[in-house]
Amino acid sequence: MASSLLSRQLVLSLQQNLRLTAPGCRYVSKAAAKTQMEFEYDGPSMKTEVPGPRSKELTKQLGEMQNVGAINFFCNYEESRGNYLVDVDGNRMLDVYTQISSIPIGYNHPSLIKVMSNPNNMSAFVNRPALGIMPPENFPEKLAESLLSVAPSGMSRVQTMACGSCSNENAYKAMFIWYRNKERGHNIPSDEDMSSCMINQSPGCPDLSILSFMGGFHGRTMGCLATTHSKAIHKLDVPSFDWPIAPFPKLKYPLEEFKRENAQEEARCLEEVEDLIVQWRQKGRPVAGIVIEPIQAEGGDNHATPDFFKKLRNIARKHGSAFHVDEVQTGGGATGKFWAHEHWGMDDPADIVSFSKKMLTGGFYHKDELQADKAYRIFNTWMGDPSKNLFLAEVLNVIRRENLLEEVTRSGKTLLQGLYQLQDQYPNLLSSARGQGTFCAIDIRDDATRNSIILKARDKGVLLGGCGDRSIRFRPALVFKEYHVHMFLNVFSDVLAEHN
Amino acid sequence: MASSLLSRQLVLSLQQNLRLTAPGCRYVSKAAAKTQMEFEYDGPSMKTEVPGPRSKELTKQLGEMQNVGAINFFCNYEESRGNYLVDVDGNRMLDVYTQISSIPIGYNHPSLIKVMSNPNNMSAFVNRPALGIMPPENFPEKLAESLLSVAPSGMSRVQTMACGSCSNENAYKAMFIWYRNKERGHNIPSDEDMSSCMINQSPGCPDLSILSFMGGFHGRTMGCLATTHSKAIHKLDVPSFDWPIAPFPKLKYPLEEFKRENAQEEARCLEEVEDLIVQWRQKGRPVAGIVIEPIQAEGGDNHATPDFFKKLRNIARKHGSAFHVDEVQTGGGATGKFWAHEHWGMDDPADIVSFSKKMLTGGFYHKDELQADKAYRIFNTWMGDPSKNLFLAEVLNVIRRENLLEEVTRSGKTLLQGLYQLQDQYPNLLSSARGQGTFCAIDIRDDATRNSIILKARDKGVLLGGCGDRSIRFRPALVFKEYHVHMFLNVFSDVLAEHN
Repeated sequence: MASSLLSRQLVLSLQQNLRLTAPGCRYVSKAAAKTQMEFEYDGPSMKTEVPGPRSKELTKQLGEMQNVGAINFFCNYEESRGNYLVDVDGNRMLDVYTQISSIPIGYNHPSLIKVMSNPNNMSAFVNRPALGIMPPENFPEKLAESLLSVAPSGMSRVQTMACGSCSNENAYKAMFIWYRNKERGHNIPSDEDMSSCMINQSPGCPDLSILSFMGGFHGRTMGCLATTHSKAIHKLDVPSFDWPIAPFPKLKYPLEEFKRENAQEEARCLEEVEDLIVQWRQKGRPVAGIVIEPIQAEGGDNHATPDFFKKLRNIARKHGSAFHVDEVQTGGGATGKFWAHEHWGMDDPADIVSFSKKMLTGGFYHKDELQADKAYRIFNTWMGDPSKNLFLAEVLNVIRRENLLEEVTRSGKTLLQGLYQLQDQYPNLLSSARGQGTFCAIDIRDDATRNSIILKARDKGVLLGGCGDRSIRFRPALVFKEYHVHMFLNVFSDVLAEHN
Repeated sequence: MASSLLSRQLVLSLQQNLRLTAPGCRYVSKAAAKTQMEFEYDGPSMKTEVPGPRSKELTKQLGEMQNVGAINFFCNYEESRGNYLVDVDGNRMLDVYTQISSIPIGYNHPSLIKVMSNPNNMSAFVNRPALGIMPPENFPEKLAESLLSVAPSGMSRVQTMACGSCSNENAYKAMFIWYRNKERGHNIPSDEDMSSCMINQSPGCPDLSILSFMGGFHGRTMGCLATTHSKAIHKLDVPSFDWPIAPFPKLKYPLEEFKRENAQEEARCLEEVEDLIVQWRQKGRPVAGIVIEPIQAEGGDNHATPDFFKKLRNIARKHGSAFHVDEVQTGGGATGKFWAHEHWGMDDPADIVSFSKKMLTGGFYHKDELQADKAYRIFNTWMGDPSKNLFLAEVLNVIRRENLLEEVTRSGKTLLQGLYQLQDQYPNLLSSARGQGTFCAIDIRDDATRNSIILKARDKGVLLGGCGDRSIRFRPALVFKEYHVHMFLNVFSDVLAEHN
């Protein structure tokens, strides 16, 4: 079934696309990996403007049912393949945004199709369990094969959740529980704790806080949102907590050319972190945990150095706060390491690491001592979805089998080199090219130009996404090879020429 | 593939189970529906104590990876079928709890297996989209077929989400946004709104509140948790909001026998609601919305009358608060109507109705005016999962085709009659039998006896769940027929005799 679908797509692809070659040859790659070419298209192919007439019609239909203000276009996921997203008007685009960074190994990867068509897996899809009370027989094995096989250093425990926000919410709860038990010196709540918590009052619902960073994004449920500070539209009109917010370093790129200034900027921010921890302790809202992204993504792809993170982790330790690294967007291989925090080179990088997106399931790893002391404290009906673990186990197999982290490192270097070149070529238009692996970004002159570039690139068959005030973030799948980079750079270069 | 799996299971079932007949014959049903018998087992079958040795071994394994304090046992979902959950030790139990009320039409329903094996559906499982920006082509059609085909009265708009907590969190956000725009008289935030919200301060993050009820359960993320008041263990050590909490009526059952006292109790609670709304307005935290379950589930299956809900809805209207009915546990048919609030007989029952569990996807319906005025205000990466909509559409087909709401009403009557009889028989043990459809409950003398009854029933092949301090809640799937009720009552009766 699966293979016939793919064969049909392959034939269609060959019939329709043999005429395509990459436009120009400035960046044409010599070696297109054979294995990949077998299951994906060989280039973009545009039939209409985007959104095309069919997308517009469907947007109108959906507009009768929900807010469609954010809809870009409608997709034909059946026909999408590898790095190429096909829309409902038959436009085929090289996808450098991948559903907000959440498609790990491209569309319709044959290995994932196989997972679907294996009858042994069927019941995992059809019978979603209440995982916390009645898990399926293969759950420990699948956890070991999938999530625990890539556990961050120092962590052997993991809790799955349905999405990124739930993951962070529950990670925060784990930190609060841990902190309060530490304050108590034992884990037996007082009668006052038990009665006051039922009416939302302290000491049962204590005045604790999570320290976050300006520009950070950690999700949109109310606990997460109190630590999200990337765009006003996310937060406006929603009640929040009085929690400390530290400045995130505003560094100059390339980092290695501005070492001294950047180190000063990082020192300033770290000092502010310590001041805030002391201030909030004094005002009776101690900092139970610090949450940070290894690269602020939604907030504008803001980087900091390993030295910054090492010192921050030490500050957390010194003040008795848990250290939570949010890898929802950075995790899963796009930086060239499986977890972005591995670039810091630490044995004990964090107390909690949360994930979602490319991991296909949400959840968080934690050190032993961060495990809630009693059942039903970190709990909900579904606690994730075991069918996602099946896919994740296979994604990890593919990553290993195809050496995708090495590929990402290689493609990422080529991508960043290309961005540097373009930045030299268009100094009034581009600045601050930066990245790790293919997790790259570049700043555009202003917001309007950025948005125009994204739309023009889309019309030429390349899908990009923005972040921050005026950045473009590159978020290809892990199967984005050097020849895809060249294809992208060709189109991007054409679009930039139009905006110079 | 699907049918061969089922045939194999059927053969196994017939071979292994023909020897089984229901113990005793006090409640033996005359007519076992033929269609159902074809795909499910004909009774429980116990091989070991529960948890058995294999479950214990797996619990130990999983204990190396996460907290297993809530694990009951491990399941063999492949072999589970219809109303019967099979565990890894080969025990087959009549499931009257269904994964905390989240399995709508039983295990491995042939219609759901068909959805899985339809190649047209494959890409929905393999390619999870960012629904808010790039939905699949069939998304409007599937929404219309599934969620909108059962939209509550007065609502034609729906937003999907990944789970129950996310659904309520976003429903609260929608109410806050609506309320602030109403306060403003327009939807243009001030510069102060925009800047203050970035640092969690009012007026951008306003001091608004949601009024909830003591005993209510609305989820465990931090916004939801501020409205959850069923058990201390859910809330302990997690910071919360100072929001008003009203008493939920403590009624006497059967409701029709205590009309006058119950009406007085409801009037007392409604008065308190109005007082709280005024108090919280005065203290500068106006009530933007009221959230309530049609039957408080986790909190102990506490009912209120249609008159109470009508008056509460009017109070919300009078004070300009949105009215949010949380049908996460009550929705999806178990009360004999698709939504429990339909029992109130109102044309305009609510401004928002949230759902999850039996609906397989989370989300919320809302009236037009509760739609956020701008894109990206109610948003996240996944915003649900279209593969769940495929299953839901098929579940709704089965409900219609097999007249399951009528079946639930019929089974529910038999169940409640049986509970009344047992309550008469064991007045020192049982009290307050109550329910709508099969969404029934009964109170047990005390917590310890309740827990003992649940465990004893499980050893005899019937899975039950508790709620509140000392209640047992019955949460069978919608395919729980009268003969299943009789089978359950036989076992329950035996267990009660041991506890008298």
